[in-house]
Amino acid sequence: MAIQDEIYIYNTLTRQKEKFVPLREGFISMYVCGPTVYGHSHIGHAKSYVSFDVMVKWFRHVGYKVRYVQNITDVGHLLGDDNDGEDRILKAARIEQTSPMEVAQAYTRSYYEDMDALGVARPNIAPTAAGHIPEQIELIKTLIEKGHAYEANGSVYFSVSSFEGYGKLSGRRNQSEMESGKRVEIKSEKRHPSDFALWKKADPTHLMQWNSPWGWGFPGWHIECSAMSMKYLGETIDIHGGGIDNQFPHHECEIAQSESATGKPFVRYWIHNNLVTVNGQKMSKSLGNFTTIKDLLKKYPPTALRFFILQSHYRSTLDFSDEAISAAKNGLEKLNETYNRLLQSPSGNGALDIEPYKAKLHSAMNDDFNTPQAIAVFFDLSREVNTTLSKGGLSEEARSKVIDFFNIYGREILGVLSETQTAMRGDSTLLANVMKLVLELRQAAREKKDFATSDLIRDRLKETGIEVRDTKEGATWRRLD
Amino acid sequence: MAIQDEIYIYNTLTRQKEKFVPLREGFISMYVCGPTVYGHSHIGHAKSYVSFDVMVKWFRHVGYKVRYVQNITDVGHLLGDDNDGEDRILKAARIEQTSPMEVAQAYTRSYYEDMDALGVARPNIAPTAAGHIPEQIELIKTLIEKGHAYEANGSVYFSVSSFEGYGKLSGRRNQSEMESGKRVEIKSEKRHPSDFALWKKADPTHLMQWNSPWGWGFPGWHIECSAMSMKYLGETIDIHGGGIDNQFPHHECEIAQSESATGKPFVRYWIHNNLVTVNGQKMSKSLGNFTTIKDLLKKYPPTALRFFILQSHYRSTLDFSDEAISAAKNGLEKLNETYNRLLQSPSGNGALDIEPYKAKLHSAMNDDFNTPQAIAVFFDLSREVNTTLSKGGLSEEARSKVIDFFNIYGREILGVLSETQTAMRGDSTLLANVMKLVLELRQAAREKKDFATSDLIRDRLKETGIEVRDTKEGATWRRLD
Repeated sequence: MAIQDEIYIYNTLTRQKEKFVPLREGFISMYVCGPTVYGHSHIGHAKSYVSFDVMVKWFRHVGYKVRYVQNITDVGHLLGDDNDGEDRILKAARIEQTSPMEVAQAYTRSYYEDMDALGVARPNIAPTAAGHIPEQIELIKTLIEKGHAYEANGSVYFSVSSFEGYGKLSGRRNQSEMESGKRVEIKSEKRHPSDFALWKKADPTHLMQWNSPWGWGFPGWHIECSAMSMKYLGETIDIHGGGIDNQFPHHECEIAQSESATGKPFVRYWIHNNLVTVNGQKMSKSLGNFTTIKDLLKKYPPTALRFFILQSHYRSTLDFSDEAISAAKNGLEKLNETYNRLLQSPSGNGALDIEPYKAKLHSAMNDDFNTPQAIAVFFDLSREVNTTLSKGGLSEEARSKVIDFFNIYGREILGVLSETQTAMRGDSTLLANVMKLVLELRQAAREKKDFATSDLIRDRLKETGIEVRDTKEGATWRRLD
Repeated sequence: MAIQDEIYIYNTLTRQKEKFVPLREGFISMYVCGPTVYGHSHIGHAKSYVSFDVMVKWFRHVGYKVRYVQNITDVGHLLGDDNDGEDRILKAARIEQTSPMEVAQAYTRSYYEDMDALGVARPNIAPTAAGHIPEQIELIKTLIEKGHAYEANGSVYFSVSSFEGYGKLSGRRNQSEMESGKRVEIKSEKRHPSDFALWKKADPTHLMQWNSPWGWGFPGWHIECSAMSMKYLGETIDIHGGGIDNQFPHHECEIAQSESATGKPFVRYWIHNNLVTVNGQKMSKSLGNFTTIKDLLKKYPPTALRFFILQSHYRSTLDFSDEAISAAKNGLEKLNETYNRLLQSPSGNGALDIEPYKAKLHSAMNDDFNTPQAIAVFFDLSREVNTTLSKGGLSEEARSKVIDFFNIYGREILGVLSETQTAMRGDSTLLANVMKLVLELRQAAREKKDFATSDLIRDRLKETGIEVRDTKEGATWRRLD
């Protein structure tokens, strides 16, 4: 199937929107930096992974086959983003008095629980850093062989000056700028202060270490993404995504490592989502100003969280507050009301041409995944649907096309709409309460000798799979299976 | 907290029931062989992992802290159980036209989906074989250094004759017996036909291979469990579990590798569950006579499947048929009826002493996890509960103790009981059907000018979180959030 849609993507590497053309026709190789699993995920993670989820779903909808790889960082990500902090997982393990792998796996499960709740589709491959030590060692060996890295005292560093392209993604190349931008501790074993670790020597008490040609140690943070991206997607990939805070140093280092090793371009399109802020400041685990997804989902349905995220563009910052997310929830409820009214509506004679809406939605999404505009299309459509329904309903053909539109774009791709509001959540409790009421109504009918009604209730319940039994303790019910 | 219960376990190694004494007081290190992820899990897997789930929950209930490690085999498990078949994951990837890692991860997710549905608690650590290549290489290096393994043409083999204890678990040690038991292809590079591969040389087109001191290749199947068990639980562990079909060669080889490397006992208690059979023949993926858990869960609630499994002892074979599982489902329904009748019952004056039931249940479970006897205790208790309820109900104190008993042993540990039968499944549909009936009753009341009833319905629904709205298309309802 030839793909009709022309998608334009803002490529951070070229700082402009470019027409998307994949390396292999119809196939997309896509890598997105996954979480460091040392705590529960927060709304900042939600913004990133919901944004990329919508992109992947959009690509697939227009006809691409996407292989989506997203790593799990379970070793090597040091605090403070420089080369000398404490490993995040080890720190969490120390605090929780358990083993690093247990911490990493518990928070990996927590992460996927949250993503499942948010309707984020699982990546095709989710490799872990600790599970790819040999691949990282091989890549480091190649870099040493080609003169881009050097061993010093059991650690290996990438020589930034050996790679001319360093800085092309972030525009940060000038040494003094880097030094003022972040405090780089000058370790005597590095040849140059901006050189970064590919492999770190471990002291004997370090809980996560592996043997290597340079002795026992562990990989630096950046090398995992180069190694795993190449392993599962090849030396040059179509898309690499991640949060804008990873642009430097992480992604800049990935480019340096990968292109020095292969001599080929590493990534064709770099996509970076912007951050979630709280009162203008970046939300992050390390800053401590975060709200976890789990806490939010106690207060809001997952679709409201998705809607809140997608109402702003992925390249805009999203300022988080309870007011903002409540407002989003209210907006979504209006769309959901229309959607459910539509689902429940009988057919009539009204006409509605869905094609212009479809065209607008496609052009919004094809323009660098403009989800706020796509949502605006839904509000426009909603108005016309409501007007038509109030005038006596949509023709069967129109109704079915409009329902398809809501289902495909609103439920499957954006993932914000849901049947009967936040359906399924707590339906068992509601059912129990409603059944209590029904049994009382039946009891009242019997007391009034209105046996027609009481029999009707019993029979209709039976039809739907509920058996009523009269016991000494009053009427009870049970599901028939 | 001192642990009161004395647990006796049938130790396959000694072929007798032994009092369980862990290495470290109050702490249990436990390793169970996990699935090879090349297809959906079947009822044979369910029997194994439900059995060990109940053991872990029992240990925890009586006061132990358990670290439960269960691996995922995503490389190296060859077809035919000898050293020369095709890798199972690679074969599945070839059939499904995708990459081995994508296959492995998809079926890993499928496995956990099934286990979650069956209420099997996740292991503390679930390491993957492909994620522990360096650990396997280190162990192989040690074995070569100590003279228990040798390299031949880029592969490494364990020398069975170098380990005196070979055969102590399975009783299979005699060479001619082994040769007649399974066809061992005599490869010229092996010094002895019964030597087994620790590392296999890969040809250049092989999709899963890593660099090693012996060149590019991949680990043999047995080595992963030794390496990962030692990494996460130490050189000697309390319990190693698995299906009886893994006793030989897999577990025998694990012992040989581990004890040759460390000079210490590898496992103190070996626990093996027996198999699921179909008409007397082992159910297995490789034999093709399997029913997947997913297919079964379309027909039976997960609790019925657990009940079916736990009604026989883990060391007995379980013959699978639709009749057998239907019978189990009916039996379980009786217990669930009592449980739900109890939950809904008002308190009365009847007495019931729960202590004898508790004592019987503990002694059943402490006797090598005798779940069929534990279930029998529930049937006995059920009879007394029903009699007492029919005579006017249980006293508040007794009622609450009996409910605790059902909750702790029946729901949490055995995991078979559930509120309002198979609660939650399809409750949204039921709710929709019941609400339809309620709105009709309200309409009928209004037509009869019985506004007291119609108002009551509206108000009571509102209290429970449901809003009724009258539209041109008739009354509709929506959930309030």
